[in-house]
Amino acid sequence: MLSHRPTIAIVGASGYTGALLAELLLGHPDVDLVAVSSSTLRGSPVSQTLPRVRADLTFCDDGEVGGVDVAFLCLPEGRSAPVAKRLLDDGALVVDLSPDFRLSLQAYHEWYGEHPCPELLPGVYGLPELHREEILRARLVANPGCYSTAALLALHPLKDMGLLDVVIDAKSGVSGAGKTPSERTHFCSVDSDLTAYAVGGHRHLPEICAGLSADGQAPPLTFVPHLVPLQRGIVETAYVRVSELPSEEELRRRYRDAYAGEPFLEVIDEPPRLRDVTGTNYCRIFPTVDERAGRVLVVAALDNLMKGASGQAMQNMNLMLGRPEHSGLR
Amino acid sequence: MLSHRPTIAIVGASGYTGALLAELLLGHPDVDLVAVSSSTLRGSPVSQTLPRVRADLTFCDDGEVGGVDVAFLCLPEGRSAPVAKRLLDDGALVVDLSPDFRLSLQAYHEWYGEHPCPELLPGVYGLPELHREEILRARLVANPGCYSTAALLALHPLKDMGLLDVVIDAKSGVSGAGKTPSERTHFCSVDSDLTAYAVGGHRHLPEICAGLSADGQAPPLTFVPHLVPLQRGIVETAYVRVSELPSEEELRRRYRDAYAGEPFLEVIDEPPRLRDVTGTNYCRIFPTVDERAGRVLVVAALDNLMKGASGQAMQNMNLMLGRPEHSGLR
Amino acid sequence: MLSHRPTIAIVGASGYTGALLAELLLGHPDVDLVAVSSSTLRGSPVSQTLPRVRADLTFCDDGEVGGVDVAFLCLPEGRSAPVAKRLLDDGALVVDLSPDFRLSLQAYHEWYGEHPCPELLPGVYGLPELHREEILRARLVANPGCYSTAALLALHPLKDMGLLDVVIDAKSGVSGAGKTPSERTHFCSVDSDLTAYAVGGHRHLPEICAGLSADGQAPPLTFVPHLVPLQRGIVETAYVRVSELPSEEELRRRYRDAYAGEPFLEVIDEPPRLRDVTGTNYCRIFPTVDERAGRVLVVAALDNLMKGASGQAMQNMNLMLGRPEHSGLR
Amino acid sequence: MLSHRPTIAIVGASGYTGALLAELLLGHPDVDLVAVSSSTLRGSPVSQTLPRVRADLTFCDDGEVGGVDVAFLCLPEGRSAPVAKRLLDDGALVVDLSPDFRLSLQAYHEWYGEHPCPELLPGVYGLPELHREEILRARLVANPGCYSTAALLALHPLKDMGLLDVVIDAKSGVSGAGKTPSERTHFCSVDSDLTAYAVGGHRHLPEICAGLSADGQAPPLTFVPHLVPLQRGIVETAYVRVSELPSEEELRRRYRDAYAGEPFLEVIDEPPRLRDVTGTNYCRIFPTVDERAGRVLVVAALDNLMKGASGQAMQNMNLMLGRPEHSGLR
Repeated sequence: MLSHRPTIAIVGASGYTGALLAELLLGHPDVDLVAVSSSTLRGSPVSQTLPRVRADLTFCDDGEVGGVDVAFLCLPEGRSAPVAKRLLDDGALVVDLSPDFRLSLQAYHEWYGEHPCPELLPGVYGLPELHREEILRARLVANPGCYSTAALLALHPLKDMGLLDVVIDAKSGVSGAGKTPSERTHFCSVDSDLTAYAVGGHRHLPEICAGLSADGQAPPLTFVPHLVPLQRGIVETAYVRVSELPSEEELRRRYRDAYAGEPFLEVIDEPPRLRDVTGTNYCRIFPTVDERAGRVLVVAALDNLMKGASGQAMQNMNLMLGRPEHSGLR
Repeated sequence: MLSHRPTIAIVGASGYTGALLAELLLGHPDVDLVAVSSSTLRGSPVSQTLPRVRADLTFCDDGEVGGVDVAFLCLPEGRSAPVAKRLLDDGALVVDLSPDFRLSLQAYHEWYGEHPCPELLPGVYGLPELHREEILRARLVANPGCYSTAALLALHPLKDMGLLDVVIDAKSGVSGAGKTPSERTHFCSVDSDLTAYAVGGHRHLPEICAGLSADGQAPPLTFVPHLVPLQRGIVETAYVRVSELPSEEELRRRYRDAYAGEPFLEVIDEPPRLRDVTGTNYCRIFPTVDERAGRVLVVAALDNLMKGASGQAMQNMNLMLGRPEHSGLR
Repeated sequence: MLSHRPTIAIVGASGYTGALLAELLLGHPDVDLVAVSSSTLRGSPVSQTLPRVRADLTFCDDGEVGGVDVAFLCLPEGRSAPVAKRLLDDGALVVDLSPDFRLSLQAYHEWYGEHPCPELLPGVYGLPELHREEILRARLVANPGCYSTAALLALHPLKDMGLLDVVIDAKSGVSGAGKTPSERTHFCSVDSDLTAYAVGGHRHLPEICAGLSADGQAPPLTFVPHLVPLQRGIVETAYVRVSELPSEEELRRRYRDAYAGEPFLEVIDEPPRLRDVTGTNYCRIFPTVDERAGRVLVVAALDNLMKGASGQAMQNMNLMLGRPEHSGLR
Repeated sequence: MLSHRPTIAIVGASGYTGALLAELLLGHPDVDLVAVSSSTLRGSPVSQTLPRVRADLTFCDDGEVGGVDVAFLCLPEGRSAPVAKRLLDDGALVVDLSPDFRLSLQAYHEWYGEHPCPELLPGVYGLPELHREEILRARLVANPGCYSTAALLALHPLKDMGLLDVVIDAKSGVSGAGKTPSERTHFCSVDSDLTAYAVGGHRHLPEICAGLSADGQAPPLTFVPHLVPLQRGIVETAYVRVSELPSEEELRRRYRDAYAGEPFLEVIDEPPRLRDVTGTNYCRIFPTVDERAGRVLVVAALDNLMKGASGQAMQNMNLMLGRPEHSGLR
């Protein structure tokens, strides 16, 4: 643990996750946000673009960030890894919100192409509920994708029961598509609309597959995301066949045991409502047995920008710095 | 076919489906809406409660409706059947939008309780794409449930391929929950929210099961509806295992063949967007093969108040009266 | 009146108003939509970009449109006037939805710059409730702006009472800002937001001023539009001081008299709800007296894409062609 | 200042303001929320009804609250005053969110009827920016209405310039109408709708009049609220004639001077966006001169549940307890 108040930088803060990280870090009791970069907004006051970030900060260039204790990277895939390398060499702890360190080299090849810094692979997968011990010791954490966070938290307790077949139907708000204006994010296009997308294979699929594999084998897995007319939040409903169907009580007991003591995981007795987690770092999970069809159903809800991105990133930072895991997050 | 302009009544017109039926019938070129009833609004001008219904009509009592050629019943379950009986005896053709005539007596018992008029069972199931011939000759048509319409249209062409396992994840707008104010339909409760409901078994489940049965046997079927923050519309994504997985081309060919010439069914090449069907009587369907998981996926979208209720009801009326099926619906 | 079914073209149909015009014209009983142009979409099927336009049409280039009876122009300011000139010379009746023919040459200079075809000024101002006789004889109609339509219909009956001071507070849905994606129309930017804009002077201001002038003099007029999170619709609340404050009964009588027999104008007894006019060509108006402050209040509601644009344009076409004014609009 | 950590109670916590107060107080670093009452929910865990209130509290009866340092009253008009009296006698400081102590006895009579405890009138009007000194010494604070807060903060700096005529056009989200389900708050009724209401006189009008009076005289004042389809937030646009029209620079200088050093008041250079204040205790104000019409325009935005209710209530508590005004609010 550092003897001074840790200094923090956000690289690539013009999007939704960077902006929210800035808000969260300014409210954190024990760290100092000292640098915020954006290659396109360089030189302008942060509060001009992000009026909710009420701090005297000016955007610097991505390349100017250095000398900090922790750096959050909110950059696109491929562009993040080289920056991570530079800042690790500079002595920083790095939490990377891009997909650059989430996959094996082989899966990265298949879904994204050439990896810029294969020598840094694999990063520690930053899902505290499943990998807390590694995160505590990590210098480079790959912050999970939003869909993957919900899916893996929803399904992890079932792994011991033998996953035979998995369908995940996901619904996400529009912020998941990012801040760049397009026909698909125009208000008149999204409002009152609802549609499935990436039916042929979403990039979070390999991340979920990897997390559900046992002995290198993943069960047959279908993942279909849907865009719904709301700003923030993800609800995923998973339909799962397992080797032996548990009773309702057995199922709930397993979930409660698996997540006992978790600061941000709530196993509940009815389907979660998105509104109960929006703006928070909580993930709420409801497991149940469909006796008629002989299946387990699990519904999980979280805020894609919080537990699905910036909140979880700060949770990882807290662990890496030896601070209470929930600092600044409640 | 009648020699005069048919006269039409709507029984129970204070809700969403009755109101929309009134709008549609007033725009129909060949029929005359002559009576609109509501037990609670009796005596008041229709245009006062329903400002979009620009006609000189006054709500009468449900019991006063009679002497018409066609009656639409928009009443709750159990209350609809006796009115249907009375109006059939009065010589009217009846399109019933309640669930009273959709199920077998046995299934009705299980899901709703005692049936008020078992002697009228079974009604003709009013899904024109699957039962057009019976509807043409019917005097009593059971208008399908909104979820059931989407599910059965989405899955019907797969029946020949041997349905082994079916998961249907449905998303519906709030009008599906009806007009009665409640905590769950309050704007501040629904806006920005999303939740699964009726996870233990929705009342449309037996209707879907019956429609998918072959030789009295239905495949294992899970159906989970979700409430999303929009007024109108349903999107259902079905995940299906069949005896033999077809190729993408074979699958699409089957769907196009099954629905060739249908006036309100569009088989398309990408996931449907809800906005393209809202306010219309169209159902758009996208079938595809998930090679990775060895499954067929089907996404269907329709407007729950149109093809899922009032529009389909008028489509049924057109058939029963020998009018062009699309009259007043385009 | 033409002896054949009139042929119609839409020039610049890729935006909201052009798309809606196409839907409306295809549903019109007495005219044939024969050409739809878009310089950017040239050669592609219309139904691909506009799935609700279920017709076998292909976008042609703007310059290819010719030989039609009526042309609707949905082009940006400055680009519309030369096309109008060409099509008038070609023998077409023209309804122009741009601002090119709405203003005097002087006002156009001040607000838009050089006019491309000053010799065509002034066009007939296409507000049927106020200028029906001129429209009947017109070859070139300037379809009014959406805000202007609501404002002028709301305030016209007060002109005789001596307008002393006028404040118009307008609220508009996002479609008024057009289809081009931008930060301001991103779903996450608009949803849950509300803001005043163009506080320094909106381009519809001179149009409203001109319509309210008596003897070339307009009263002091403030017009402030606000962007609200809905797709379609405008509500304007006007706060007006007049020479002599009428009684409530006198005020309502004047409004009812002024608009007696109007097919799309409804004077009502309580503030209009936007939902009662959305998707229709109706404008609903509620005038009332604020005794406390000695002012007249008028609230008007209409659908900016219908009565505020495409619906009114078709209403104008009906008049120009000698057809019933409401053809295809109810 | 108390020598122990102050204990706090919320009376009537089942609505929106009470629930938000509970969330805020649990996040406050220096006080302890010890009692939460609701006459209808008595005996049930708070977290069951309010899942975001993650605390081990059970609803007690309103009458059981006692022995606390500060009590917040979130009760309906007329029911609040007697509870205030009892708790003041019990030694508590009281912040009352009802209208019971906001008006003079005469105005209360006119707008609400008989006052239950006239001997307690007048309460200190809890608008810190205008009445900080009185609040510091108060035992009973009347927390202002949401509309009144925005209006008075928007117009206060103009009082010195001689208010001649005032129009306030307000737009509010649905939470302002409270949590009780009704036709007017049904999602399908509100979504895509917009309407003016209370045109004949809203109950916040006398509160605003009182605040704008000079020498007992208020200027002619029209206040018209509109319901818009969003959950939280108010934007008010004020159109004001003053004795002498200032220059743009003079106007902005006056506003900046009037609110210099205010922790939650931001005078800005362009119209405020609601989204920049939602979820915060800030009020953002934009004053400008309309040279054309010779008027001052002021646009103000705040979150009706925060600065317009619960946030401001906690701000008042901080002042009454001698704590930093912004404790728990940033």
